[in-house]
Amino acid sequence: MTYPFFKNNGPFKISDILGLLNINKQKIINDSEVFDIRDLLTSNKNDITFLHSKKYNDIAKNTNASFCITTENLKNELPKNCKPLVVSNVLVSTCKVTEKFYPSSINDHFDNSAINISETEFKNKVKFGKNVLIGDNVTIGSNCMIGHNTIIEQNVSIGNNCSIASNVIIRNTLIKDNVNILDNCVIGKHGFGFFPNKDKNLRYPHIGIVIIEENCEIGCGSTIDRGSMSDTVIKKNTFLDNQIHIAHNVKIGENSIIAGQVGIAGSSILGRNVKIGGQAGISGHLKIGDNVEIAGGSGVIKNIPDNSKVMGYPAKSLRKFLKENKWFIKQPL
Amino acid sequence: MTYPFFKNNGPFKISDILGLLNINKQKIINDSEVFDIRDLLTSNKNDITFLHSKKYNDIAKNTNASFCITTENLKNELPKNCKPLVVSNVLVSTCKVTEKFYPSSINDHFDNSAINISETEFKNKVKFGKNVLIGDNVTIGSNCMIGHNTIIEQNVSIGNNCSIASNVIIRNTLIKDNVNILDNCVIGKHGFGFFPNKDKNLRYPHIGIVIIEENCEIGCGSTIDRGSMSDTVIKKNTFLDNQIHIAHNVKIGENSIIAGQVGIAGSSILGRNVKIGGQAGISGHLKIGDNVEIAGGSGVIKNIPDNSKVMGYPAKSLRKFLKENKWFIKQPL
Amino acid sequence: MTYPFFKNNGPFKISDILGLLNINKQKIINDSEVFDIRDLLTSNKNDITFLHSKKYNDIAKNTNASFCITTENLKNELPKNCKPLVVSNVLVSTCKVTEKFYPSSINDHFDNSAINISETEFKNKVKFGKNVLIGDNVTIGSNCMIGHNTIIEQNVSIGNNCSIASNVIIRNTLIKDNVNILDNCVIGKHGFGFFPNKDKNLRYPHIGIVIIEENCEIGCGSTIDRGSMSDTVIKKNTFLDNQIHIAHNVKIGENSIIAGQVGIAGSSILGRNVKIGGQAGISGHLKIGDNVEIAGGSGVIKNIPDNSKVMGYPAKSLRKFLKENKWFIKQPL
Repeated sequence: MTYPFFKNNGPFKISDILGLLNINKQKIINDSEVFDIRDLLTSNKNDITFLHSKKYNDIAKNTNASFCITTENLKNELPKNCKPLVVSNVLVSTCKVTEKFYPSSINDHFDNSAINISETEFKNKVKFGKNVLIGDNVTIGSNCMIGHNTIIEQNVSIGNNCSIASNVIIRNTLIKDNVNILDNCVIGKHGFGFFPNKDKNLRYPHIGIVIIEENCEIGCGSTIDRGSMSDTVIKKNTFLDNQIHIAHNVKIGENSIIAGQVGIAGSSILGRNVKIGGQAGISGHLKIGDNVEIAGGSGVIKNIPDNSKVMGYPAKSLRKFLKENKWFIKQPL
Repeated sequence: MTYPFFKNNGPFKISDILGLLNINKQKIINDSEVFDIRDLLTSNKNDITFLHSKKYNDIAKNTNASFCITTENLKNELPKNCKPLVVSNVLVSTCKVTEKFYPSSINDHFDNSAINISETEFKNKVKFGKNVLIGDNVTIGSNCMIGHNTIIEQNVSIGNNCSIASNVIIRNTLIKDNVNILDNCVIGKHGFGFFPNKDKNLRYPHIGIVIIEENCEIGCGSTIDRGSMSDTVIKKNTFLDNQIHIAHNVKIGENSIIAGQVGIAGSSILGRNVKIGGQAGISGHLKIGDNVEIAGGSGVIKNIPDNSKVMGYPAKSLRKFLKENKWFIKQPL
Repeated sequence: MTYPFFKNNGPFKISDILGLLNINKQKIINDSEVFDIRDLLTSNKNDITFLHSKKYNDIAKNTNASFCITTENLKNELPKNCKPLVVSNVLVSTCKVTEKFYPSSINDHFDNSAINISETEFKNKVKFGKNVLIGDNVTIGSNCMIGHNTIIEQNVSIGNNCSIASNVIIRNTLIKDNVNILDNCVIGKHGFGFFPNKDKNLRYPHIGIVIIEENCEIGCGSTIDRGSMSDTVIKKNTFLDNQIHIAHNVKIGENSIIAGQVGIAGSSILGRNVKIGGQAGISGHLKIGDNVEIAGGSGVIKNIPDNSKVMGYPAKSLRKFLKENKWFIKQPL
């Protein structure tokens, strides 16, 4: 991914980064420039990355990054091209460095750059309501509608034939063609990612975006958070009902159907043709296969293979759930 | 019901309808006019209806409709006065014909007809906030208040002594006297009903409305979807807490109390004096009796008879639930 | 507590109060003045209080109130200084008297006093968006931002360095320093408290406020209701994710983390360092200890002691939950 919407304030001298992390600079021979911060996989030469868990040792061995924020225990997993920067808390340090590169990615203050659409180039191109605001770095395709009081904040690209309803707030989002966003949605705010810290939590940068592909519909009052160091993605022809919450870094495959009040926690990845009943919840960092059906009210806490039907809390195979509740199903209430 | 708010573009020649459905027109002797599309029960002579499941055979036998979209297997259930139009997918075909009669019922684009209330007849009659918009075909009774940024879109009738708060969006809704709608509600949008279709789902028409009877209160951030071919109804003196989702075609009886974050799926019918605890969910197409109490967090997947108390997921009688969890209730945590 | 935001219309003659409650006035010797209505604990001499359950007998014995609305059965629990006013329904009568003292605390009509911020003293002090409205009795500290379409209704105090996003509605709320309120929140409306009454429920007064302490973040689309005769409190450095509902009188301790779509019912009290996973629900009137962890999707219906981890519906100790579901966790789905 390319973090298309957040300005990279780099490059920075490695000596500046060491200073920020309170690392002894005496060992620096060549005060080289660091161009970007990325994950182990996508880092290039002269980038800085981070390694905080042995789960990622295999990826670490092949990183192209020149520097890596890590711990004493993990530093030997890195290849020769990558100098370890040993710290006590990798995530807090990574947060600090990311904030240095992308300072505008920390907070979600309202977009003060937004002006009334009637003062923009879009006034003759878009069918719009009263009090519509448009921020910097916005593009809108042909044949689009934007409803009353909707705020398209900075860093939004909208395709053709899209219908954005009223009271909607969108930022840092790429919307493709034929997408419907219904009333009162908030799309593209930073995720609920931060480092807990007594008296004052430390905010985690969110430099990812939201991508909503062709033919999707997003129901009223839904919230879709942008990614932290990855993107949040809704693939084409997926329909979301009202009051759904999609956390940061989630990916949902195409042709999926998600009923009202469902919540999907951070970084979970769903396949295509997934059907989820109302009020179901999916924990973070899970992998849900293609053609999976999750019954309403279920609580999913494990990965689900392709073509499974699950129900319950914790969600288990529908067959097992029905067997366990057989007496309930046969008898009168 | 009478679909009071959606303009019927009919009548249409039956030959046009056959063409739309790719049915051979050669068998037509008399190219008669079709006036409306309705369900089996409410259709009149010269209307078209549909039969897609043998569950409805008994009703089908007595329909007054002149035409019925159905399948090869079901066509013999119809009375002599009703000509079957045999198709491969009844619901998709019904959707196409309904769209022909009621084209404005498919989408929920923002209401471009809405103008500031100070430019309407209501400016001296209603106590209103800043930036209040009123669409076409709106009536408002005496002694009403409408808060800041609220949008009363087209096809809304509001009774006397109603208080509509701020940032509310209402369309296709009939509100009776003494109703309170709190901030950020969205009422009357189309339901989450469509025919899944690879790459591009087919939207189902929603020609029903929302009816909210006397003395009701609807909490902040709630969404109440309008019906598809029926209405969504909240009977008198029923109170809804915040963040509730009521899907299309749901009916809720009078004097009911529904706590925060409850979700009721499409077409379920609840009796009077129903009490529902927070976050409970009710599946679609269920019948919940009078005086039923549903504990918070329950997931209801079966009909519930009158005067029952239920709890759990799946929701069972409160007595059974407590018995199963006896050890839990007696012991310390 | 001092009900700082609601005007006390008292004092009233005790004869007026007896009339309101249809109590025989003949026994009055001295028609003294009553200054306020408060709970048993905080009432002063010349105040009126109420006692409706024997649970409160111990507190009742020491009340300083001069009058107490109560029942025939409970009247002998009161001290000599406190005259019982015997009624058939204590809560309904208390509601009537509270409404007499605090008439503006019953309903949440939109704030008609609100004007555009550019017409207020804040125009040079606050960084603000389009269409921001400010009601009566509002104070705002230094270095604050208020986003587009946000309505700060009457009776709000905002500290320094606060960021209020767009489409937010706040009333009757005290916000301390460094607080972030994200888009579409509604904070300070009356709670879901009323006396069910056939055909027309009786609204309960809500004369408490919401207090949000330093360094808190409130996620998009969340609702926090103000207290009835107590306050709703979010202590410092507590972060709430999106679409959370906090009911009236709830207290949440400092450094807590609450994930998306959680709901906390009325009057529950949570300790510090509490972590709650997504979609969990907590019943009303519970006490949750310090350092408690509640897994996502749990339904809490009992008090939880300090340092516990719980999961399930009903929520039980995590150890028990995992033991019961051992087969599930070991086996493939």
